[in-house]
Amino acid sequence: MADGRAARGRFIVVEGGDGSGKGGVIEALSARLTAADHDLLVTREPGGTDEGLKLRELLLSAEGAVWDQGAELLLMTAARIQHVKRVIAPALAAGRIVLCDRFVGSTLAYQGAGRGISESLIRGLHRDLVDDLWPDITVLLDVDPRVGLARSRARLSDAELDEGRFEDLDIGFHDRVRGGFLDQAQHDVERTLVIDAARPADQVRADAITQVLARLDLLPS
Amino acid sequence: MADGRAARGRFIVVEGGDGSGKGGVIEALSARLTAADHDLLVTREPGGTDEGLKLRELLLSAEGAVWDQGAELLLMTAARIQHVKRVIAPALAAGRIVLCDRFVGSTLAYQGAGRGISESLIRGLHRDLVDDLWPDITVLLDVDPRVGLARSRARLSDAELDEGRFEDLDIGFHDRVRGGFLDQAQHDVERTLVIDAARPADQVRADAITQVLARLDLLPS
Ligand SMILES: Nc1ncnc2c1ncn2[C@@H]1O[C@H](COP(=O)(O)OP(=O)(O)OP(=O)(O)O)[C@@H](O)[C@H]1O
Ligand SMILES: Nc1ncnc2c1ncn2[C@@H]1O[C@H](COP(=O)(O)OP(=O)(O)OP(=O)(O)O)[C@@H](O)[C@H]1O
Ligand SMILES: [Mg+2]
Ligand SMILES: [Mg+2]
Repeated sequence: MADGRAARGRFIVVEGGDGSGKGGVIEALSARLTAADHDLLVTREPGGTDEGLKLRELLLSAEGAVWDQGAELLLMTAARIQHVKRVIAPALAAGRIVLCDRFVGSTLAYQGAGRGISESLIRGLHRDLVDDLWPDITVLLDVDPRVGLARSRARLSDAELDEGRFEDLDIGFHDRVRGGFLDQAQHDVERTLVIDAARPADQVRADAITQVLARLDLLPS
Repeated sequence: MADGRAARGRFIVVEGGDGSGKGGVIEALSARLTAADHDLLVTREPGGTDEGLKLRELLLSAEGAVWDQGAELLLMTAARIQHVKRVIAPALAAGRIVLCDRFVGSTLAYQGAGRGISESLIRGLHRDLVDDLWPDITVLLDVDPRVGLARSRARLSDAELDEGRFEDLDIGFHDRVRGGFLDQAQHDVERTLVIDAARPADQVRADAITQVLARLDLLPS
């Protein structure tokens, strides 16, 4: 499979709510594609650019910074610009397969459907400033957020659990996020694989691998 | 003048190219308005918000960060969002006069006319995310950039002058910036005072004060 590849690689994004299993699916896909001799780049935002890492620090820093949600959207988008221009686009131009944990679809789902920022604003920024780069294939891991959040719960410290932070989670928000992902899938059926991620991890991963490989063969190279 | 003021103050912005004399004009206006018993807030971006200061550090840090110009625009706009929501809008809501050194007009002139980023993108971001807040009065200090830059030259260190950094300045860029400011003025004649800033500083400042005071009286309060 290493020969005959076009100068433009393939851009595969794995999306889904918290605890939907993206990490494991990326790992499994990555192992399978590497075994098939594909030249692979595995990445996630902020994507290892210096600029992106600094923005991530800014956004996550607990020292009292309170970001307006519009400002937050702009910082995330700025990190994405750096990630795309410095990391993703050059890899695709070199014919590599890029496997990315979350991308603009997560912004549409979380900031858009979840928080109510206008979808056309998010898409406009992506079009005007992020080279309007969209995945060739989106693997959407779909699962009821109650299930995903329960999986993630294992990651919270006992202290956090004692504080009741899990119970405080706004399940309505996560339901809207899930709906946002499914809406996107419906509007881009051709390039989205919706995978039932409520099943055991092995089945989810095997399913993702089979479907992605089939789709890669179908894509003109 | 302290009584009879509306709950919404007045937003005065001083704009102009590098070395046009904004600093001195702000100082003179500030002294005059304070003497007239106005409740005044003097500010500039990033406006003293923690978040804005951190963004400013990011943008100015010389440690190898190379920002795409779209990302730079988003960081500046994010700083402006924080500045407006946390500092400017509350002051205006409290009926204060806000005097600001540069605002979105500088983004339109430098990033837009100067660097070629689409004006409608900049205006769209301002409309959607910065509450579409525009100055009640813009004081535009207009001067040939050759004159302004010569004034600023005195600020460069000898080392920088030896390196020829001043001579390397792209005068075409600064001409476009000046044109961008004048275009804005033409499209918003009602709310812009174009001041010939090639004259001696005393004259420029006296002119700015006279015109702003006249305009403030004309504005419905
Ligand atoms: N299908 C599955 N069934 C049960 N547990 C799973 C399944 N998939 C993943 N897990 C477990 O759920 C937890 C969350 O998985 P993972 O970190 O891969 O999710 P994620 O989608 O990357 O979440 P986040 O968006 O928070 O990074 C992990 O402990 C993982 O082992
Ligand atoms: N009308 C004038 N004639 C001569 N010199 C002036 C005049 N106005 C200001 N200067 C001097 O020019 C220099 C630049 O002025 P100033 O710092 O106020 O400009 P500025 O518009 O704030 O520039 P910047 O955008 O770089 O901050 C200062 O040394 C100032 O004293
Ligand atoms: Mg993960
Ligand atoms: Mg100045």
